[in-house]
Amino acid sequence: MTFDDFARLPVAWLDASGEQSAIVVSSRVRLARNLIHLPFPNRANKTHRQHLVKAVLEACEQNKQTKQLVFFDADGLNLLQQQVLVERHVMSPAMMTRNGARGVLVGQAGCLSVMLNEEDHLRFQAIFSGLQPQSAWQAISELQQVFAESLQFAFHEAWGYLTACPSNTGTGLRASVLIHLPGLVLTQEMDAVVRGITQMGFAVRGLFGEGTDALGNMFQVSNQITLGRSEQALLGMLSQAVAQLVECEENAREALLSSVRSKIEDKVWRAWGILQHARMLTSQEFMNLASAVRLGVGLKLIHQVSLQTLNELMVETQPSHLQFMLGRELEAAERDVFRADRVRQKLMPSG
Amino acid sequence: MTFDDFARLPVAWLDASGEQSAIVVSSRVRLARNLIHLPFPNRANKTHRQHLVKAVLEACEQNKQTKQLVFFDADGLNLLQQQVLVERHVMSPAMMTRNGARGVLVGQAGCLSVMLNEEDHLRFQAIFSGLQPQSAWQAISELQQVFAESLQFAFHEAWGYLTACPSNTGTGLRASVLIHLPGLVLTQEMDAVVRGITQMGFAVRGLFGEGTDALGNMFQVSNQITLGRSEQALLGMLSQAVAQLVECEENAREALLSSVRSKIEDKVWRAWGILQHARMLTSQEFMNLASAVRLGVGLKLIHQVSLQTLNELMVETQPSHLQFMLGRELEAAERDVFRADRVRQKLMPSG
Repeated sequence: MTFDDFARLPVAWLDASGEQSAIVVSSRVRLARNLIHLPFPNRANKTHRQHLVKAVLEACEQNKQTKQLVFFDADGLNLLQQQVLVERHVMSPAMMTRNGARGVLVGQAGCLSVMLNEEDHLRFQAIFSGLQPQSAWQAISELQQVFAESLQFAFHEAWGYLTACPSNTGTGLRASVLIHLPGLVLTQEMDAVVRGITQMGFAVRGLFGEGTDALGNMFQVSNQITLGRSEQALLGMLSQAVAQLVECEENAREALLSSVRSKIEDKVWRAWGILQHARMLTSQEFMNLASAVRLGVGLKLIHQVSLQTLNELMVETQPSHLQFMLGRELEAAERDVFRADRVRQKLMPSG
Repeated sequence: MTFDDFARLPVAWLDASGEQSAIVVSSRVRLARNLIHLPFPNRANKTHRQHLVKAVLEACEQNKQTKQLVFFDADGLNLLQQQVLVERHVMSPAMMTRNGARGVLVGQAGCLSVMLNEEDHLRFQAIFSGLQPQSAWQAISELQQVFAESLQFAFHEAWGYLTACPSNTGTGLRASVLIHLPGLVLTQEMDAVVRGITQMGFAVRGLFGEGTDALGNMFQVSNQITLGRSEQALLGMLSQAVAQLVECEENAREALLSSVRSKIEDKVWRAWGILQHARMLTSQEFMNLASAVRLGVGLKLIHQVSLQTLNELMVETQPSHLQFMLGRELEAAERDVFRADRVRQKLMPSG
């Protein structure tokens, strides 16, 4: 599978399957692992880094399942290609700015991936559609198990898995969900909800992780604690917190419908009208309009578009995907025109 | 024909027939006439006013054509009904605030009308679709001719027809066009154009006459001079000025298409998307969106809607028409919801 093949494949975790998929876009579980006898990437020299990549790729060959993973060497990808991987959430922005041997192993559907020489030697990741952190955990846990057969991960009896940053030590697990909370934003309850969730030991971030905005009312909720609890306990806590969030969001939506129904209908339908007809769309405006339409689908006001289509557009309308699809770099204004074209094509396939 | 019948009939001058109808909505000619031996309405007492109405209605009966006119006594209409007539441009806002016997004679299609005891005893009016001031003049001239057979109009050999306000004396004629100039507004040339047109002896006003805004880029251009020129000369001057305006507008549109085509397409199509889907529309927003769609139709970007439909909506979405159609008074927010319903029904008759 070439990079182009991969970048053109539909992303499986955007298919709106799984529980609560009208509100919970996806569930992601990440495991940090490091090899013994090799310094953490931040401390590693050129040779160490090359050694790590070589060791992991050799380990891949040992097993039928891991053999199917495809390795994209970061240095073998141009900037645009790297950004496409970032937009697909299989490569971190941090990896792009690093040096030395590094890259990412990906499964065909984009659900499973392993970053090599990012902050840790290996960062396993599974993303599943909807609210299913357990399934994601199971998939990624099995994958790291396969690697563990041929690689020796640094593990301390008292501390657990060792990681470059102490905040990840222990399980090395970070679980998160990407959740769409337009109701709580519209009822202005989001600040209070974020405070509550934070006190429960979770972090709330924007679409692309730490320090990014909650574009289109999309939030990432993830566990802060990695140490002193079992993986099952951590996942259980997250599922519970997310279930509460979903309930709050459903209540907010109901409250909106009963107090300002016309305004909500207007907001939702206008967004649908604009998405279908606009000839220029910034990515920020797209995300906000798509958020309103997604709310409309959730409220069963709009039946003309699927959650899957909206999810896919969220990835496909990002700057690097647009430029990759068109095969050339685009000025911001050209991108806005092409983004609007793309959205119209996808929303009105016949027109 | 009852008031309800009249208010439900399509307005003939909105059918987008006539020349230049993509830019010129309508042409209007008004003639002011007063009877001898009766004081002007401002000076008239109750009896004089009743006498005037009686005399005119008797004159109506003398002729087959005028017999078909229907009289709406202003005092026999409630506020909402009067406002419906104002929105149809057959009654002036000024007449609503006057006292004593007064009203309006209307022809079935709403093209011909005569206000009684407004500023003058009789104000004849013809409105025709598109750029056809000559046809409007001919129609209204013939109508006043018929009345002149049984009524004696005040006429002075040197000054011409006498009127309550000296600015109307002479021909008593005021001719105007309702013209849509979004191109000149977008290219910010409108101020310069208004200055030029004013220097040529024309007034430029908003949709509902003096002191009103140019909602939806709709302007009324009318002659200021009524004295010392023949009716034909006045109409010729107006036609010439309007032809120039149309040319300026066409140039502005062409300039926009060649310099900012994407922005114009975006503006036009968004407006179309919103009009088709919004669930709440203020009248101001409607006028602005309809203006953009009308521009899109003129530029042959949008083919899904006719100018006639847009013209009709311009009248039917006004507050009093909405309330009249629904048969009850509406709060502003309810009107916005019903306006949006009306617009959707009319734009998507099948949906």
